[in-house]
Amino acid sequence: MAGSTFGRAFRITTWGESHGKGIGVVIDGCPAGLPLTEEDIQPYMDRRKPGQSRYATHRQESDSVLIMSGTFEGKTTGTPISLMIINTDQHSADYSALKDVYRPGHGDFTYDQKYGFRDYRGGGRSSGRETVGRVAAGAVACRLLREFGIEVMAWTSAIGPIRARTFDRDEIRKNPLCMPDAQAATRASAYLGRCMSEKNSAGGIIECRATGVMPGLGDPVFDKLDARLAQAIMSIGAVKGVEIGDGFAAAEHTGRDDNDGFTTDENGVIRPTSNHGGGMLAGISDGADIFLRCAVKATPSIAQAQNTVHTDGTPVRIEVRGRHDPVIVPRAVVVVESMTAIVLADALLTGTTARLDTVKRAWNR
Amino acid sequence: MAGSTFGRAFRITTWGESHGKGIGVVIDGCPAGLPLTEEDIQPYMDRRKPGQSRYATHRQESDSVLIMSGTFEGKTTGTPISLMIINTDQHSADYSALKDVYRPGHGDFTYDQKYGFRDYRGGGRSSGRETVGRVAAGAVACRLLREFGIEVMAWTSAIGPIRARTFDRDEIRKNPLCMPDAQAATRASAYLGRCMSEKNSAGGIIECRATGVMPGLGDPVFDKLDARLAQAIMSIGAVKGVEIGDGFAAAEHTGRDDNDGFTTDENGVIRPTSNHGGGMLAGISDGADIFLRCAVKATPSIAQAQNTVHTDGTPVRIEVRGRHDPVIVPRAVVVVESMTAIVLADALLTGTTARLDTVKRAWNR
Amino acid sequence: MAGSTFGRAFRITTWGESHGKGIGVVIDGCPAGLPLTEEDIQPYMDRRKPGQSRYATHRQESDSVLIMSGTFEGKTTGTPISLMIINTDQHSADYSALKDVYRPGHGDFTYDQKYGFRDYRGGGRSSGRETVGRVAAGAVACRLLREFGIEVMAWTSAIGPIRARTFDRDEIRKNPLCMPDAQAATRASAYLGRCMSEKNSAGGIIECRATGVMPGLGDPVFDKLDARLAQAIMSIGAVKGVEIGDGFAAAEHTGRDDNDGFTTDENGVIRPTSNHGGGMLAGISDGADIFLRCAVKATPSIAQAQNTVHTDGTPVRIEVRGRHDPVIVPRAVVVVESMTAIVLADALLTGTTARLDTVKRAWNR
Amino acid sequence: MAGSTFGRAFRITTWGESHGKGIGVVIDGCPAGLPLTEEDIQPYMDRRKPGQSRYATHRQESDSVLIMSGTFEGKTTGTPISLMIINTDQHSADYSALKDVYRPGHGDFTYDQKYGFRDYRGGGRSSGRETVGRVAAGAVACRLLREFGIEVMAWTSAIGPIRARTFDRDEIRKNPLCMPDAQAATRASAYLGRCMSEKNSAGGIIECRATGVMPGLGDPVFDKLDARLAQAIMSIGAVKGVEIGDGFAAAEHTGRDDNDGFTTDENGVIRPTSNHGGGMLAGISDGADIFLRCAVKATPSIAQAQNTVHTDGTPVRIEVRGRHDPVIVPRAVVVVESMTAIVLADALLTGTTARLDTVKRAWNR
Repeated sequence: MAGSTFGRAFRITTWGESHGKGIGVVIDGCPAGLPLTEEDIQPYMDRRKPGQSRYATHRQESDSVLIMSGTFEGKTTGTPISLMIINTDQHSADYSALKDVYRPGHGDFTYDQKYGFRDYRGGGRSSGRETVGRVAAGAVACRLLREFGIEVMAWTSAIGPIRARTFDRDEIRKNPLCMPDAQAATRASAYLGRCMSEKNSAGGIIECRATGVMPGLGDPVFDKLDARLAQAIMSIGAVKGVEIGDGFAAAEHTGRDDNDGFTTDENGVIRPTSNHGGGMLAGISDGADIFLRCAVKATPSIAQAQNTVHTDGTPVRIEVRGRHDPVIVPRAVVVVESMTAIVLADALLTGTTARLDTVKRAWNR
Repeated sequence: MAGSTFGRAFRITTWGESHGKGIGVVIDGCPAGLPLTEEDIQPYMDRRKPGQSRYATHRQESDSVLIMSGTFEGKTTGTPISLMIINTDQHSADYSALKDVYRPGHGDFTYDQKYGFRDYRGGGRSSGRETVGRVAAGAVACRLLREFGIEVMAWTSAIGPIRARTFDRDEIRKNPLCMPDAQAATRASAYLGRCMSEKNSAGGIIECRATGVMPGLGDPVFDKLDARLAQAIMSIGAVKGVEIGDGFAAAEHTGRDDNDGFTTDENGVIRPTSNHGGGMLAGISDGADIFLRCAVKATPSIAQAQNTVHTDGTPVRIEVRGRHDPVIVPRAVVVVESMTAIVLADALLTGTTARLDTVKRAWNR
Repeated sequence: MAGSTFGRAFRITTWGESHGKGIGVVIDGCPAGLPLTEEDIQPYMDRRKPGQSRYATHRQESDSVLIMSGTFEGKTTGTPISLMIINTDQHSADYSALKDVYRPGHGDFTYDQKYGFRDYRGGGRSSGRETVGRVAAGAVACRLLREFGIEVMAWTSAIGPIRARTFDRDEIRKNPLCMPDAQAATRASAYLGRCMSEKNSAGGIIECRATGVMPGLGDPVFDKLDARLAQAIMSIGAVKGVEIGDGFAAAEHTGRDDNDGFTTDENGVIRPTSNHGGGMLAGISDGADIFLRCAVKATPSIAQAQNTVHTDGTPVRIEVRGRHDPVIVPRAVVVVESMTAIVLADALLTGTTARLDTVKRAWNR
Repeated sequence: MAGSTFGRAFRITTWGESHGKGIGVVIDGCPAGLPLTEEDIQPYMDRRKPGQSRYATHRQESDSVLIMSGTFEGKTTGTPISLMIINTDQHSADYSALKDVYRPGHGDFTYDQKYGFRDYRGGGRSSGRETVGRVAAGAVACRLLREFGIEVMAWTSAIGPIRARTFDRDEIRKNPLCMPDAQAATRASAYLGRCMSEKNSAGGIIECRATGVMPGLGDPVFDKLDARLAQAIMSIGAVKGVEIGDGFAAAEHTGRDDNDGFTTDENGVIRPTSNHGGGMLAGISDGADIFLRCAVKATPSIAQAQNTVHTDGTPVRIEVRGRHDPVIVPRAVVVVESMTAIVLADALLTGTTARLDTVKRAWNR
C-alpha cells in the first residue's frame, strides 16, 4: 500500500529509484508567501551529495534540484511544490551481477518477497539515494521554520566505537565526518581506514538539536512530537534506534533524577529547569531544545566475501562490488536534520488549530 | 489537530481521560468474519489493570470492556468495533491540589501551553490511563494475527539498573514485574523497595518479540515496518527510546558482523541466517522474529518534595500525593505488546495489495 | 477498509448499528476552549428523532446524547470528544423474517457480498440510524462555526413531485415536513397520505444554505469545498444527487449568464455580484452564501409485495413490515445541515495554514 | 492545507500549474506486476489534448507523458509511479493583462483571498490544465481495472440545451463533441457556432458507465462508492452537480418504482433486476453497471465585455482574450472517465481486506 507520503499539514510524497530517471518530492501544504528559490534548497543537496571525501562513494551525482511547480516570483503559492533531481552517472552495468543474488543486510530478499520482483539496479527504491527527496523537502521545511526562529542542526556523534567527547559547533562542517570534535574525527578517520583495508564498513550515531522551538508542538496521542520524530527518523534506511532526550539512559534514572521541573526566567516566562525529556513532555514541546539521537548500522555493501543464496535458493559467496560508502553516517546527517525539520514544520502548522483563540487570530476574528 | 487515530487499514481511534466518564477505542477496518467476544479482550485489560501487586497503584479499576458495535453473533461484521471501559473509582478530589501547579516530568505545562487550559484531574488525556484504549484494540489485533499464526509477546527486561540475564518464557507471567528471569525479578523487587522507601520511582526496559511473521510486511518508505513500530511504541507515554533488532549496538558493529545473510532451510524456504535486523530488512519483514526494545522513564509522580512553579509562575515545592505506581514498566508490557500487534495487523492488511496476483487472489480472479 | 472517518482537521469517526448497544461518534481535532455541553447537542438529536409526526416511524428513540470525553468545566479541552447515544426501543424480532431475504433497494445484498454476512437487524450499519452520529458531530461543528458568525440551515424543498414555491424561513420549523412553504407542505402531506394508503413511499429534495462564510475556505484540488461537500452529502444513505449553486441548470447556461462577476460594497469589500456558483469559485468560498441541493430517494421499505430472492437465490415475494418512515426527507434535513457544517468546520480549521501570515498570527509571531 | 492527494490504497498526488515547468502526478500504491509503459498512458493524454477541433483551444500542447519512476522492465514495481508532462507552448504574455483583474467565474478572487496572491498566468493551479495529472493517473487506473474485466467509458450527453437522444457507442469517438448521437452532435455544433459568434460559451452534461464491476466495492459510511465518486467528479473544475443512477429523478420516484429487486440468472448468480441505483446500494456496488452523470458549467473565459473589479476594488470591464475552449465538455469527458477509474481502482484495492477469508487468500493461507 501507499507508504511514500509523510506529514499531515506539511505533507511530502517522494518518488524515484536509484537508477531510474530521477528522484523527486511533492510538498503539499506549505503556506503561501514563503520566499523560496532553488538556491535555498541546493546547499542541502550538496551536503548529502557523494564524492566529497574518501569516505564517501566516488559517484559524481550533481544532484541539481529543480522547482517544477508551487512558486511564483520567488515565493510559494500554497499549491504543491514539486522538486525534481535528474539522475546522472548511473552505472547500471555494475549491478547486473547482483540481479539473482540476495545481498546480506540489504532489502533484495524482502522486496522480492513483497513485490514478486525488484528493480535490482542499485537497490532501486530501497537505495540510500531515496533520501534525496527527503533532503529537498527538508530544505523547504528549514526555510519555513526559520521564519519562526527555529533552527535544526545534526551532527555525527560516533563512528563505530569512536565517540565525540567535546562539542565544537563550528567543527561540524569542517571535517568530512561531520563530528563536533576534531580529535575524535581524526581517530574515526583512522578507524574507517582500517575498515576499508579489511573490505569492511562501519556505522555510527547521529544527534540532532532544534533550537528556538516554542512550547505547544505535537498532537496527542499517536501524533505526539516524539512519536512522529521516531517514525520520521526510523524510516531512514539503516537507522536501527531512536532516542529522545535521555533516551535509554532514562531507563536507569529515578524519577527524582529524570524529572524536568520548571522555573520562571528574567522575562517572566516559565521554562523547564533541565532537559532530560529532549524538549518535550507528554509528547508536546516545552520550550527547551528538541534533542534526539539515532543509531545507523554499517553499510551492508562490503567487498569481502559473504555467504548468501541465489534467488533460486542455491548457496553463493558474493563480494559486493560497485561504489559504496564505507560509512553512510556523515551523509545521513543532513537526512536526519531534514526529517526532524519536516516533523517540526508539520507540527507547527497543525498547532494553529489547537485553540479557539489561535484559530480566531489566524482568521483575524 | 486530530492525533488520536493510528493505522491505515486496521485503524484505531482512542478517546477518554483519566477522570472522565470512560475510555474507549473505535477500531475501523477489522475484516469481517473474525470470531470476537468480550472474553477475547478482557484478559488483556486485566494484565494492564492496576492494583495487582504492591508495585502498582492500589486504585481498583475494574476495567470491564464492553463491545458496543461491530460484532454480530460472535463475529466481526466489518463495521467499526467500538470498545468502551467505564471509569470507576476516580478520586478527583486527590488532584485538586495540583490544579494550579506544573508537576515536574508531567504534561501539565505543555498541555496548558498548547490548549490554554487542561483537565487537571489525574493527567486527563496525558494519563497512563489513556493506554486502556490501546490495550483493548491490541487484543483485537492479537486475535486477528492469531488467524495467521502470528504471536506477539512482551516482557520486562530491566527495572532501573537491574537487568534480566536469562530468558524463561514461563516466568514472565509468574512474577509481578513480568521479568523472564526470576532472580532478576527478586533483585528488582528489592530495588523498587528502596525507591519506594525514598519516595522515589524507577524506570526500565521492555522487550517485545513477534513470531510466525511472514516475509513482506511493511510499506516503503515512510510506512516501513520499523518506522511504524517506532511511532507506535514512542507514542506510549514515558517511552524515551526505541530499538529494532540490534538497535544502538548496531552503531558499533561492522558490516561483516551486522549483515544478515540467507540460507535455504530443509523445506526449500529461503531464510535469514541471523537476526541483527530484528526481523526486517529495508523496513520489510524477512521471516525472522520481529524484535524490539524500548526505554521507559521513571514514574514522574513522586512523593518527595520537588521544585517547580505555579501556573502563575511563582516558585513552589510540591510532593505529588495520590495513588501512583513506583514503576510503570510491568503494566506497560501489555501496552507495548498491543501497539506492536496493531502495527503488524495494519501491515498484514495493507500487504494484501502489494502485488497484482495477491489482489487477484483476494478477489478470486 | 476503514471508511467511518471523515475530515482532516475536524475529524469525525462514527460507530454503531441500528440494533446494537448504541451509536456514537468521536470528534478529534475540535479546538480547545469552545463552550460545549450536552444542551448544545440535544436539540439537533431531537430534530432527527423519529416519532414526531405521522410521516415518521413511531419508534420511540429517546436519543439522549452523552458527552463521554473531551470537555472539562463546560469547555472543549482539545482532546477527542466522544459522544454516545444508547439504543433503546429496538424490536429485533421484527426483523428476523428478513434474515434470509434481500430486500429491494436496501444494502442487504451488497453487505452480504462485501462482508460475507450481515447484521440483519434493521439494516445494521446501513440503517438510517447511522446518521445519529453525524448529527451529534454536526451540532458541535455548528457550535464552532457560530463563533465565526457562520450559520447553516437546511430545509425540504420538495416531497416527491410537490415543490416549495415560496421561501418563508420561519415556516421551516413549523410544519412536520420542514418545508419553507406552508401551502406546499399541505399538498405534500396529501401526497404522502396517498403514498401511505398505497403502501408506497416518497423521496424529495433538501436544500441547504450557509451564511456568514468568509472567502478562502476549501483546499485545491481534491479537497475543494464543493468536492468535500459532495462527498459528505452523497455519503448520506438514500442521497442520489448533489448540486452546488446552479447545479445541473448550469449545464444549459452560457458563460455570460452563469459567470459571477465582482463589485465593491459600501465598506470597500469586494463581493460577487451574483451567486450562480453556490458561494464558491474554483472550489474556494467567495463570501457569497454557500448553497447546495440534494436528491433523496424514496424509503425502500414498503409494505406492498415486491419480487426479490432469498439469500440462496430462490425467488420470493416480500412485504417489508416494521416501523418505517414513508418519507425520510424531513428527518434527513438536519443530517444535511450537519454534514455541511462538518465540512465547513474542517475547511475553517485547515484554512489557518494557507498563508505564512495566518500561521504567524496564530502563533502570535 | 494539503489537498492534492486523493485515494487511500491507490493514492494519487498531482502537482503543476498551467504556465509552470510542467504537470505531474505521483501514483502511490499501485500493485506490483502490472504491465505498464508510456504507450498505455499516451492515448488518454491525447484525448484530453487541445487543438483537435475548432471547439477546442488552438494551443498546441504535445502533452507527452514520461514515466519517471515505478516501473522496471515494463512492469510496475509497487513503488511510486511518477508521471510528468513538460509544459510547452505557454504564452504567458497573453495573461499579464489579467494580473490585476478578477475575471468573472474564475478562481482569481478566491485564490487571492486564500493565498494572498496568485500565479495569474492562465489560472495557475486552478486552470483546466491541472487535469492533465488526473488523466495520466486515470490511464494507469484503467490499465489496472482491465485486469479485472472492468471498463470505464464516458461521453457527452448534452451541450447546452442540446441533448443526445440515442446511444451509439461507436459514434462517441467519431464526432469531436464525444456525443453518442450523431444528429445531436450536428445540432450541438451549430449551437456552439452561435455561442462563438456571440463571444459566448456553453456547458453541458457528461455521463459515465463502468461495466464488469464485481459486487462489494465501496466502504461504508463516508467512503461509500457513491460518496467517493461524488468527491472525485465534483473536484473537477467547472463541475456543478453529480448524480448516481437515477439521480435527481429519484426524488420524484416512489419506493415501488425506484427499488432495485433481485433475481437469479442462468448461472445461478444473484443480480439486480433493475438499475435505478446506478450500480450500487447502500454505497456498495451490486454488480450492475456503475452509472453517473455530471453537469459542467460554461467556460468562464469569454471575449465579450463583462463587469468586474480590479484587485484594488475599482470597477472595470474586461474581455477575456487568449485561446480558450468555447466549451470544455468534450475535453472533460476523459477526465470524468479518469476520476471514475481512480475511485474504482481504489475501492478494488481497499476491498481486499473486507473479509478474513479474502485476506487469507491474498496471503495464501
